[in-house]
Amino acid sequence: MTFHPGQPLTDASTPELLASLLRDWHARAWVSGTGGGICGPTEDGNLFLAPTGVHKELVRPDDFFVVSPADGRVLRQPSTAGLRPSECNTIFGLIARERDATSIAHSHALATVLAADLVEGADHLEIAGLEMLKGIRGLSNVDVHRVPVIDNTPREPELVAGLARVLDDPRFAGAFAVLVRDHGAYIWGDGVWEAKRHVEVYHFLFEATVARRERHSKEGQR
Amino acid sequence: MTFHPGQPLTDASTPELLASLLRDWHARAWVSGTGGGICGPTEDGNLFLAPTGVHKELVRPDDFFVVSPADGRVLRQPSTAGLRPSECNTIFGLIARERDATSIAHSHALATVLAADLVEGADHLEIAGLEMLKGIRGLSNVDVHRVPVIDNTPREPELVAGLARVLDDPRFAGAFAVLVRDHGAYIWGDGVWEAKRHVEVYHFLFEATVARRERHSKEGQR
Amino acid sequence: MTFHPGQPLTDASTPELLASLLRDWHARAWVSGTGGGICGPTEDGNLFLAPTGVHKELVRPDDFFVVSPADGRVLRQPSTAGLRPSECNTIFGLIARERDATSIAHSHALATVLAADLVEGADHLEIAGLEMLKGIRGLSNVDVHRVPVIDNTPREPELVAGLARVLDDPRFAGAFAVLVRDHGAYIWGDGVWEAKRHVEVYHFLFEATVARRERHSKEGQR
Amino acid sequence: MTFHPGQPLTDASTPELLASLLRDWHARAWVSGTGGGICGPTEDGNLFLAPTGVHKELVRPDDFFVVSPADGRVLRQPSTAGLRPSECNTIFGLIARERDATSIAHSHALATVLAADLVEGADHLEIAGLEMLKGIRGLSNVDVHRVPVIDNTPREPELVAGLARVLDDPRFAGAFAVLVRDHGAYIWGDGVWEAKRHVEVYHFLFEATVARRERHSKEGQR
Repeated sequence: MTFHPGQPLTDASTPELLASLLRDWHARAWVSGTGGGICGPTEDGNLFLAPTGVHKELVRPDDFFVVSPADGRVLRQPSTAGLRPSECNTIFGLIARERDATSIAHSHALATVLAADLVEGADHLEIAGLEMLKGIRGLSNVDVHRVPVIDNTPREPELVAGLARVLDDPRFAGAFAVLVRDHGAYIWGDGVWEAKRHVEVYHFLFEATVARRERHSKEGQR
Repeated sequence: MTFHPGQPLTDASTPELLASLLRDWHARAWVSGTGGGICGPTEDGNLFLAPTGVHKELVRPDDFFVVSPADGRVLRQPSTAGLRPSECNTIFGLIARERDATSIAHSHALATVLAADLVEGADHLEIAGLEMLKGIRGLSNVDVHRVPVIDNTPREPELVAGLARVLDDPRFAGAFAVLVRDHGAYIWGDGVWEAKRHVEVYHFLFEATVARRERHSKEGQR
Repeated sequence: MTFHPGQPLTDASTPELLASLLRDWHARAWVSGTGGGICGPTEDGNLFLAPTGVHKELVRPDDFFVVSPADGRVLRQPSTAGLRPSECNTIFGLIARERDATSIAHSHALATVLAADLVEGADHLEIAGLEMLKGIRGLSNVDVHRVPVIDNTPREPELVAGLARVLDDPRFAGAFAVLVRDHGAYIWGDGVWEAKRHVEVYHFLFEATVARRERHSKEGQR
Repeated sequence: MTFHPGQPLTDASTPELLASLLRDWHARAWVSGTGGGICGPTEDGNLFLAPTGVHKELVRPDDFFVVSPADGRVLRQPSTAGLRPSECNTIFGLIARERDATSIAHSHALATVLAADLVEGADHLEIAGLEMLKGIRGLSNVDVHRVPVIDNTPREPELVAGLARVLDDPRFAGAFAVLVRDHGAYIWGDGVWEAKRHVEVYHFLFEATVARRERHSKEGQR
């Protein structure tokens, strides 16, 4: 199946597209091991959710759960037996409700870890001076974009409190991503296409910010 | 469809080739999000132009506009409904007229941003001491090649003034690329094959110059 | 043939899966030249073993030997003539017996060499502060994980003594990998799917630890 | 067409294999623009030679010339019209005669340029302390391997004198590669499979040596 942004997504094509994004991101090492996750909208306002504990590049359209963004309840089991819904379920639901997001990705890319390392004691990363900021909804290339950074916790559901706090923080109202220290990032959008665009753009922004900080670190020594 | 430089390109095959280059460049992270762009020649001297706001690796041959390089007028809509021509339209037209270019690419690769960072206050990047310079039309490996660097502006059409200035500057008469600070690069050639060769060569030259400068920065500390 | 973790592996599909992993790892430069290796379980408790001296991305399902994990004896020759079993045979057998591993990979990735370089005089690498630790069986993200590092020797079978020592060392009871200085890593799991997950996770952990140490090295200079 | 090291290569399959290696190396950025080159043996002792000025990943089996290693004479034109034999012709012939090589590659990888930069005033790069040295014919992992480095010149045929000198130098009798400063590397073997193995191994050795020198450069500052 090939995709085209001009074609409306359906309950038949959305899981295909979600699975193809996981394959692409696995090839880029943004999800690996069995880490990472993704969800996208059903036609009736719920979420297709990838299973947990599965090599993400091998997830098939039949492996997606349908869950409610209101409470995470499983509304439809996947055709494939023996799967459990992603541990991201609670977090994805929170982001869906708080930000009207219908598609959310969870990345484990090395660049997300290194970007969070940059902030040290602060609670957010500032990204500025990059045209690619225009790839984030609502931003221009002259904006200073603040991405909140929260601490990691042993279990993903426990991240909910930290996430809820920064999603409520007016300083971060323009962010479509949250960095989790030592861990990764949650990145979302309204629909799978916007989520995909934001995922690619934020990874670029994280890589560029890390690379520039490296250079300034060296410059500062001279 | 497979391509071969020995086969003349036609109005049927050029959009296929342009779409395949976008797929290759997306895989290399030279275009991502929905950024980047490309155009190539029609048989009657106009330009096939990719649409804006679309994930570039998913652009299909039917998605290309035909525009006039003289004034950017849309001469033919794509078969696909609902698309808008790339914001690069004005810039591509300017480069086409000033440099007799019939194929132009717009890259958002990280290496273009880091290469522009190197020049700091200057208005161009000097590239020297690399055999790959011979991949640029008219250059030998003993040339010092000057690539102009212009400042970024909030909207791509506003880059036109800066571009017009450096395209007129005799110091840059041998350049087939312009770097835009914090943004990316425009790279062109006479025909799609030369544009493709220049795109690959300039990305190598930018990466090599950045890597060597890193090393000298460290050496200077000892 | 496509694979899915939900389908039980058989003597027909296991060699297909092992061959597909070698292709993926070759594309990532984790095995190259003719280096690297892999084994996985037969249905009757023996090991499918890749041949030596062969470009690993070209290994076909018919090229696998069946060997005994007890003593390395070849129980079944591959259909393809003229092949010899991997030099990893003895080492894989040792790991299989000592750790109840049924699938073991041998990586030659650059990150394994650079990670082993970090430990200098010590006999292990400490990995901490990374969510991806949870991708290793039994670990949480707050654990400090110790991966033993042994010296390289001219012939792989001679590594057996060094490996036997660290596999016996209670400090490393939780490790599913051994780094060999200047050389690479052995990484294993219970079944091919766990071995694959551990391979991807350990490569991430090695890359992240190297990248962070680089940054601290620069910070320390300021 | 799929390849397997166990199948003897023929005049039908050798050009297919050479073309597939160029595609793989283009994806790795070891050849780009229209740079780089390759040759491999015909059944009657001559060389299949890729054309010049062509995007290397698009070279088709029908595009190869047959040339004499004795004097570079073109013995058979490719079926494709309008092609010229690679500028590497003279150099490949020299290496073929001096080293009994029947397959030779010319890489433009960034790692070859950075590796040559390391030697500064010296005439060779020393590579040591790497298991992957065993991937070079005749070497063990405790050898110190010397790869000669020669200066670049404006035209590839003019490199012949420099190459002839180092190919005659007994210090480099064990080398299957020559680095050309600011340019790239020639890497060869007896047959396409050995050349392929040497190409992958030398690129690893160059990358590892560059990465380790970076680290020592930083360490030296503390």
